[in-house]
Formats: sequence, structure tokens, C-alpha cells
Amino acid sequence: MSAGFSVRIAGYSDRRLQAAAARLETRVSRQTGIPLQRAAKDVLIVECQERGAEYPALYDDESYRLDVTESFARLRAPTVTGALRGMETFSQLIAADAESFYVPVLQIEDRPRFPWRGLMLDVSRHWMPLPVIERNLDAMAAVKLNVFHWHLADDQGFRVESKLFPKLQGLGSDGNFYSQDEVRRVVAYARDRGIRVVPEFDMPGHTSSWFVGYPELASAPGPYRIERNWGIFEPVMDPTREEVYKFLDSLLGEMTGLFPDPFFHIGGDEVLDKQWKNNASIQAFAKKNRLDSSAALHAYFNRRVQALLAKHGKQMIGWDEVLAPELSRDVVIQSWRGQKSLADAARGGHRGVLSFGYYLDHMQRASEHYHVDPLSKETAALNTQETALILGGEACMWTEYVDAENVDSRLWPRLAAIAERLWSPRDTSDIRSMYARLDAVSDWLEWTGLRDRAPLGILEQRSGTDLRALDVLARSVEALGIEQRQRAQYYNSLVPLNRLADAARPESEMVRRLEEIAAALFVDPAARQQREAELRTAFTLWSQNTAALRDVFKTRFYLAEAAPVSENLSQIGNIGLRALQYLESGQNVPQGWIEEQEGVLDRLTIPRAEVSLAAVRPVRALLEAMSSGAGRAERAVNPGASH
Amino acid sequence: MSAGFSVRIAGYSDRRLQAAAARLETRVSRQTGIPLQRAAKDVLIVECQERGAEYPALYDDESYRLDVTESFARLRAPTVTGALRGMETFSQLIAADAESFYVPVLQIEDRPRFPWRGLMLDVSRHWMPLPVIERNLDAMAAVKLNVFHWHLADDQGFRVESKLFPKLQGLGSDGNFYSQDEVRRVVAYARDRGIRVVPEFDMPGHTSSWFVGYPELASAPGPYRIERNWGIFEPVMDPTREEVYKFLDSLLGEMTGLFPDPFFHIGGDEVLDKQWKNNASIQAFAKKNRLDSSAALHAYFNRRVQALLAKHGKQMIGWDEVLAPELSRDVVIQSWRGQKSLADAARGGHRGVLSFGYYLDHMQRASEHYHVDPLSKETAALNTQETALILGGEACMWTEYVDAENVDSRLWPRLAAIAERLWSPRDTSDIRSMYARLDAVSDWLEWTGLRDRAPLGILEQRSGTDLRALDVLARSVEALGIEQRQRAQYYNSLVPLNRLADAARPESEMVRRLEEIAAALFVDPAARQQREAELRTAFTLWSQNTAALRDVFKTRFYLAEAAPVSENLSQIGNIGLRALQYLESGQNVPQGWIEEQEGVLDRLTIPRAEVSLAAVRPVRALLEAMSSGAGRAERAVNPGASH
Repeated sequence: MSAGFSVRIAGYSDRRLQAAAARLETRVSRQTGIPLQRAAKDVLIVECQERGAEYPALYDDESYRLDVTESFARLRAPTVTGALRGMETFSQLIAADAESFYVPVLQIEDRPRFPWRGLMLDVSRHWMPLPVIERNLDAMAAVKLNVFHWHLADDQGFRVESKLFPKLQGLGSDGNFYSQDEVRRVVAYARDRGIRVVPEFDMPGHTSSWFVGYPELASAPGPYRIERNWGIFEPVMDPTREEVYKFLDSLLGEMTGLFPDPFFHIGGDEVLDKQWKNNASIQAFAKKNRLDSSAALHAYFNRRVQALLAKHGKQMIGWDEVLAPELSRDVVIQSWRGQKSLADAARGGHRGVLSFGYYLDHMQRASEHYHVDPLSKETAALNTQETALILGGEACMWTEYVDAENVDSRLWPRLAAIAERLWSPRDTSDIRSMYARLDAVSDWLEWTGLRDRAPLGILEQRSGTDLRALDVLARSVEALGIEQRQRAQYYNSLVPLNRLADAARPESEMVRRLEEIAAALFVDPAARQQREAELRTAFTLWSQNTAALRDVFKTRFYLAEAAPVSENLSQIGNIGLRALQYLESGQNVPQGWIEEQEGVLDRLTIPRAEVSLAAVRPVRALLEAMSSGAGRAERAVNPGASH
Repeated sequence: MSAGFSVRIAGYSDRRLQAAAARLETRVSRQTGIPLQRAAKDVLIVECQERGAEYPALYDDESYRLDVTESFARLRAPTVTGALRGMETFSQLIAADAESFYVPVLQIEDRPRFPWRGLMLDVSRHWMPLPVIERNLDAMAAVKLNVFHWHLADDQGFRVESKLFPKLQGLGSDGNFYSQDEVRRVVAYARDRGIRVVPEFDMPGHTSSWFVGYPELASAPGPYRIERNWGIFEPVMDPTREEVYKFLDSLLGEMTGLFPDPFFHIGGDEVLDKQWKNNASIQAFAKKNRLDSSAALHAYFNRRVQALLAKHGKQMIGWDEVLAPELSRDVVIQSWRGQKSLADAARGGHRGVLSFGYYLDHMQRASEHYHVDPLSKETAALNTQETALILGGEACMWTEYVDAENVDSRLWPRLAAIAERLWSPRDTSDIRSMYARLDAVSDWLEWTGLRDRAPLGILEQRSGTDLRALDVLARSVEALGIEQRQRAQYYNSLVPLNRLADAARPESEMVRRLEEIAAALFVDPAARQQREAELRTAFTLWSQNTAALRDVFKTRFYLAEAAPVSENLSQIGNIGLRALQYLESGQNVPQGWIEEQEGVLDRLTIPRAEVSLAAVRPVRALLEAMSSGAGRAERAVNPGASH
């Protein structure tokens, strides 16, 4: 590939396929820098058999076959959606060598393991403007995710324009909402990329923002305000009044018209019953209708809403809590609680989607998400028919501690690991191999326009100078997840997310690589000198890093808290350098020194400034390698080998 | 500033001012990370007297006054445009200290020196999509430029939709053109930011792309193709046929309707007369009408076009070559040739705009552009009335060697230095002070959404890994300008701009800083140790850098040419390290060593791979400091002071 690249559509063709081909041409041009040319010499032939569903649907055939030989590259797929998936693979395969850009000779047959592979994004707690949505849809398409679950309404904001009830967004969004035209644009954008859009309007709880304009929907008299705090709140719809269902009937009629997907999410999680219990009329209704618990009231509400959705041609989906014996079987259960909910649901004939274990706002490592499987634990015991009801999984991004500036960095690249879990065969599960691919995918995803590497640059920019040392610090720490942050200090929706914890990544690539190097130090004697040198470079940087930042900590109030983190990093660097010194000199390590340092590292592991010092890990790995038999034997046989 | 910021409009108000206030609020929120809040505590009061021109106009009152005290911040301006300028200044003043974000207490009265402060951008040779235009308009507004000169048609592409003559863009643009809606959007976008849009349709030369669809306009029979090469080409309009003027009358009628600005640029540069000379009918016309030279034919054409523009209510502007004795006095001359053209034009009663010396595609340093003044050399000798005809200046960006990926990095931050020259008093001219401000402005401009730092990241991304060493190399070189590149190898519009030369910046900030450090080494003994340490860090990096890149050069064909550059960088680093060694040890430098090294540096200065090794400069400065009296005296008095 040296004189441009183009796609030739040889089989079925339509606007969606042509648009995808044009996007691929543009992407390849970006990846290589070779100007876009119509009818270039290097061609990908795309043979598509038929359209498939016009709007992407559950159980679409997403398979494709890619053949690259010395003389041609051909993509065959039964449907347009399959062709979309194959084109992403093709773009991912482009590499450069000493001669040119190329795609290696290969043959791929590929199809997904699960038909529902999604991302839930909360745009209520922090507002996510349209470009954020669009670039993340591009990245989702790149890793072959096919469901965008758009959490559009919660206590902190109602984010869609209603023409029938304009006070919903008018008083419930601070002006931050999507117009109906914008919603249609997002739906079309997603459809073009083979992604379904499932909207969520959480109810009957999580509805404070609705009640600002329509307090009459609530179970206690108003007035209500947009919720600025994080947590679970009391405001809840009144499930006993017909006016509420009339309102919902109209609103759902309007909203279902915006979203062509047959599924419609009503949330249904975390319903507090205080307002119900304090309301005599609600209690009277419950008694009269033999709804003898708040759970029964909630179930009654869900049945009513499900009937409304059915009237508007939609199948309901809700979180674990909506599951109840009388619930229509076509309701899909999304589980945030675990595989057990899904197994229970499947036994009751419900389809299910797993989100437990895929909460990206918890800031776990990719490897932890990667080993979570929709068919494991309780769901592993299901029979064949029940197993078929487990549709797949959805990663979740709740945005209490995430805003438009750093959401990409919280989603990616970890979401790519979840996407692989949901697409690839179950036995593709080696962690090292996953990380090797993840690093490559992470680089490649940048071409989709993601801004997942931007937050650190923004922090540096905000701090007024091109600070290499701030970069070193941020790459040596990992940001804490929602659970630790909600305990850390007082947060609400107006507290700026402009600190080290907000710029640091959930998982440090650099630390992971150093950890691998340290752990492998004695594995291959020929590589040892190079490995030691890499560790020494990193430890030296850490050791000297605080000096370069001292002034910055003093003169930037939002970075002051990071000063002790930086001091600790230097201490970690010093321990590492000392350990390397023992290794190089061939000296015996003094009795108890390793244990003592491990104790110090334990203390340095305690999070500060809402980050944890990941840099501890490679030093710990080094100490472990030294104290293991391998390290000792190596030293005995070959003292001072690194010199 | 800690709990949000908002603008309160206290005087005249309209949609344009409100939009600017909202943009400022958003910008401040981005700069600080503090969420946007309506009616926040920290307020900028904006008192505007009146609207001023609805569409920005030459001689608009752009003045403003900004008062920041301990208790309030107030911006006063006679017009909305003045308020726009003041808001940019306000945003630029935001800083952080140990307590919070703040704007220092100050009082500023500000107004521009010249009324015409522009940027010409060529979108014909390389296509510039809409987002490129928009983000650069934002950055132009930030540095208070007020004319966007849009070079829309040239041999390599006709970039605007014509509904009357659809083959112009249909056959003349490869599909890369702005729809009329997009043009209107850009004009509105610029207007909102106080920027006029002056379109240029270059004629009668530079018109190959017109002739692909309309060969009958040319002076020789077709067919014609879109020009893929760079240079000056023969195709030229036939100035003798009434059909040509009829066509232009219609087209100019259509195009002037899109652009509200009273000025309309017809180019007029670099007209080759071969087609005219070879055409008997043209020669007969010339003879009959006593147009006794090609220059006279060209002047005739210009008079006819000027009359058409006048009919459509526009004043003509053209490059130097349009200047001729019979030309209407309201024609403005834009000079790419020098101050003499402007002086000649002014003596003939023409207004003028200087571009000579402001060609950003020549890749000169900011300091070189900064000392070019519209009122200097020949124009300095003009009388008061004539001087008033010198309207200002325009930076030019011709895009033979610049594409959408790197255009921001070729424009910025150097364009900010030209903007300051055109806005600020003439005696603001200290180079060191300019660079200190430029560094700060460069950081701040990032908030406008510029992508001027992106190309290096793209090169690294394309090379498949996060390469610190590639970064080090790219920051140690400077890209060559158009004149050297056109001699370097065969280029045309299809040759990818994906190499080191395309990612390297025109001027290396890092090298400039190191140069200053080296030159100041013996100035302040107390700072010397720190300065030597900074130089040593840089030289060590350079010295070791090649090792890290060797594999990359071997496996990425488009980087192979950079291998010798990298070797040379390491050699420069070694010379620098050796020099520091002599300094530290207090040893006498061997006779002739400095001269010898300077000879080596001379050889290393020769450009390779279309970049020059800027890294030579700090080492040269170090050697000069050492061989100067200051260096020798220092060493004699205080040998080994750095230990």
C-alpha cells in the first residue's frame, strides 16, 4: 500500500455500505498519511450478499470472512453489518515495514459469541455533549460493540427534549440536553455503524429531575430541585395515580418514536420507599389492591409501564430489581448484581444481559473485567434453552466522577477487553496475550478520534507548562474508582474534576510493562542487562521526579495534594535503585532488607489524593524475583552478569 | 475563581455578544476544569455601548478597557467587536496560584495599530475540511486577527459549490469543496468572532481547475485536468472573449452573494502568457485594442473584472501584479513582493496590505516575522496621507507541503507573533520578551481547540508505539520551508505528508530554550550549576537517542531517511557532553578543539530528510560562550564551580 487505497463494492450495495467504505478509505488515509484517492491501486473488494436488517437488530448475522493474499484483499459477508465488522478488522491489520504499509497475508473467519455487546453511558450525572457520543460510537464500532445503552434521565438531569412535556428538559437539565434532531442524528450515526441505540429513562426512582417541572408525578409534594449530590434519593413516582400513567403513556409514545430499537430501558433500580410509606393515599391504594409490600408496589408499577411500552411496540428492559414473578416474559433483565440474577431470570424465561463485573467506573484493571463471563458461576449451570436466553453483556459507565473531559480515558482501552470477551471464543483468555493486543488496539483506536489520552495533556496545559515530570507522576499512579472516591471527600456535580486523580488512568500501561520486566528479570540471562537498564531508567526518573515538581505543587492549588504522592514515588524509585545496586554489585543483600522494603512498599500502597501508587508493583516484583530461588541461583552462578 | 465563573452583560446586548459571553464561560470552564454554572459568584461585567457594525468592517472600533480589582472585573468597550477582543484578553489572563484560579489586578486600555490583520489560507492545493477552518477561526479570534482571506480556487482545486456552474466543483475539486451552506456557516462563524471573510478566486492564471469543466474559458483548447503538480502553469483565461466576462459576471454575482464583505480578491498573480502568445485571435484582439504587451492584456482583464465586481457592489483586491496605471483607485493591493509595491500603490492612491515577510510556509522563525513591519523600508518614507493607505498585513499559508493534518502546526504559534506585530505598538519589539509571551500564548491557544501539537503524536501513533525517542528527535529538528522542499524530491498533491519533516515544527521551542541557557551559562554564577545540569540532560538524551530508534528506522520505510539525522543528533549530543566535561573538570580545552568542533557542527547543519538539525544551535552557543572572554575568565576564577 503506497499509492493510496480504495474499497471496491462487488456484491450487494447500498448507502450504508457505501458510507462505511468511504469511512474506511478515510481511516486508512489517516492511518497511513496517504492522500485519499478515488480508484487507487490497492483495493479491498467487498462482497456482501444482502442488506440484512436495515436498522441493526438482535441476532443480526455479523459474520465475515477476510482473505488477504499477495495479489488481492477480499472481504465477504452475508450482510452489511458483517461487512462493517470485517472492515474494522481490515483497518486494524494495517502495518508498516521497511518497504511500505501493508496488510499481512491471512485468512480470517469471524463471528461473535454473543449477540448483545453493549456500553451503557450515563449522561445525566455529568453532561456528555454530542461529539463525545459520536467519537465513542466510532470507537465502539471499531471493537465491534453493537449496543449503545444511553442512560438519558436520572436525578441529576433529564437529557432529552420532550415537545409534549417541555419542562422535563426545560427545568430538569440546566440547558444540557439533546434536541430531538440530535437524538435522531445519534441514532442514524449509530445505525450506520451497526450499533443499536437502547434509551434508558430510569423510573420510578432516580427521577428528581423530572419532578422539577412536574412535581405532580412524585409521591410527596414538591417543590423539587435538580439533584446536585451523588447517591440514592427519596423522590419516586406515585405508582397509584392514573395521571402518572397517562403522563408516561404520552411521554413513552413520544420517546419510543425517537428510538427505532425494539427494546426500551426503564431502569427500575434502587427504589427507596420512604415517600410511599409516608403517603396515606398510596398506602390505602396498596392495601385495597393487596400490594402488601413496597416491592409489590414497584412490581405493579413495572407491569403498568410494561403494558404501556407494549402498546407502543416496545419490549421492556430493566435492572435486576424489576424481576418479579408476574412480569411479562419478554422483559429483559440487565444484571448489575451478578450472574445469579441472570440465572434466576433465565429460569423464569427472561432474557438477560450481564453488567456485573463490567463497571468501568470502578476503575479495575482490564484483566479483571476480561475474566468476567456472562456464562459463568450461576449461569454456567443453566440448561441449553436457558443458556440461549443469556444475550451477552454491557459495560457500564456511571459518571459521578467522570466528565466529558476524561470520559474517553475512563472507557478506553479497557472497554476493548470487555468487547473481546463478548465477541471472541471463550477460550481466548490468556491475560498476557490480551494485554499485548490491548496495547496495539489502544494505539489503533486513536484513529477513531478518541480523546482517551487527552486528560493528562489538559492537566499539563492547565498547569501552564509542558511538564514532563507531571507526566512521569501521572503514569506512575492509577485513579481510584467510584467507591473509594465517594468516601474521599465531599463531592457533588459542581465540584471540578481537574486534579491528578481525574487525569490519571485507571490502569498504567507503563507500570504494567515494568512489572513484567521485573518479574522476568532472571528468566533469560541474555535479556537481563537490557531489562535492568530499563528498570534503572524508570527508577531514576521516579527518584528525581519530585525535585522538578516542587514549585508546581506550591503554585497550583489543585495539585498541592499530589506533593506527598510524588515524594512517595521518589522513595519507591530509591528502593528500586538500591535493589538494582545489590544485583549489579553481586553483593549479598543484608539480612531482612527485602522484608523491610516490602513493609515500606506496603505503606506506600495506601492511596493518597485519590490515586494509588501503581509504581509500587514493579519494585515489589523485583524484590520478589530477588528473594525467589531463581534470583538467588542466577546471582550465585553469574555474579555481576550485568557488567 | 473557585466556584465557577460567569459573564454579566450590563450595557448594550445582542445575540452576538451573548454568544461570545457563553463562549467565554465555556472557555474559562475548560481552562480551569470548573463546571459551567449559570450566575456563578465570580463575574466579568461587560459594558458595551453599542452594536457597531453588524458584519465586521474595516475601521471597526475594536478598542476595549479592562479593569480587574480585588472586588470586581469589568470590561468596557464602545462596540461588540471591542468587547470580543477584551474577552479574549481576559481569558488569557487566568492563572493559578497556591489558593485558586485568579485574574491579576490590572487595568488595560487596548486598541489595534492596524485595521487589517489577516491570515490567508490556501485550501486548494491541499483540502482543508470545515473543522480545520473553524478551529483556526477560533484561534485567530484569540489573537485578535480580523480578516480570514480564503484562497478558494487555484490550479489544484475549485473549492466552492457553484449552483450556476456546477462543473466548477463537480469536475474541479475531487469532491472536496464547501457547499454554499457551509460557506454561509463559516461566514457566520467568523462574523460571530469579529472576523471578516475575504474570498479569493485567483484569475486569470491559476485556473486549471476551472477549465476541467469549462475549457471554453481558457486561452487554448482543452481538455484540462486538475493540476496535481506544484508550480506555475500555463492555463490562463482568455481575456478577449465576451463569453468569458459573461461567465464571470454570473459567477461573481453568485459568489458575491455568499460573502457579505465589501472586498473580493481576484488573485491576479503569476500569469504566464504562453497561451496568449500562441493564440492568433487573442493576439489580433490585442493589436486591435492597442494592448501592446501581455501586461497590458492582463491589465485589461483586471479592469473588466473590477467593473463586474463594482456592479456587484464589491471592491477588488489583488496581488502586486494587478497594479497598473489605469486601475481604479479603490482596488486594494496585497503585496507578496515587498514594501516597495505597497509604497508604489499608496503613491498611486491605492490601499495596501503587506504579506511579504509573513509567509508562514517558508518556515522561518517567529522572530524573523516579528520584525517585519508594514510601515518600514519603502513604506516608511510615505507621507501621512499615503501612510494611512497601508491597512495592515496578512500572514500567508500556501499549502503545497501542508495538509489538514499538520496545518495547525505550521500556522501556530508563529502566527501569534505576526498578530502581535499588527495589533501592538511598533515599539513592542523585544525578541526575548516576545518569545516569553509566545510560549505562554502557545499553551493558552490549546484551549481554542487547535491541533498544532498533534502531528508528532500522529507520527508516533502511525509508527505503532509510544516512542519517547521519536519525540526527542522531532523536537531537535526544524522542518524546512517550501523553497527547500520543492528542491528536495519529486512532490505532487498525491505524495503523502507523513514523514519526520511533516511532523517536525518550524521552530523548536526546546532548542530555543537550550540555546538561551547555553548563551547565559556564565552570566550568573549562582545559576550555572542548574544550567549545566539542564544542558547535560538534553545532551545525554540526544547522545543516547539513536539506539532507541534503530529498529524503528529499519521497520518503517517512511522513517528510514531520518536514521542519519538521528546519528547526527547523537554526535551533537556527544560534542556538547564533551564540552561540559571540560568545563566541569576545569581542564584546559586542547588547542584548536573548539574550532574543530565548530567545523563538525557546520557540517551537521546541512539539512537532511528535509529537516535541519536545530540541536546544533545550543551546542554552538556553548562553544561560543566557552571561547569568549566571559567563559575563560569564569573558569580561571572559579575552576570546577559546578561540583
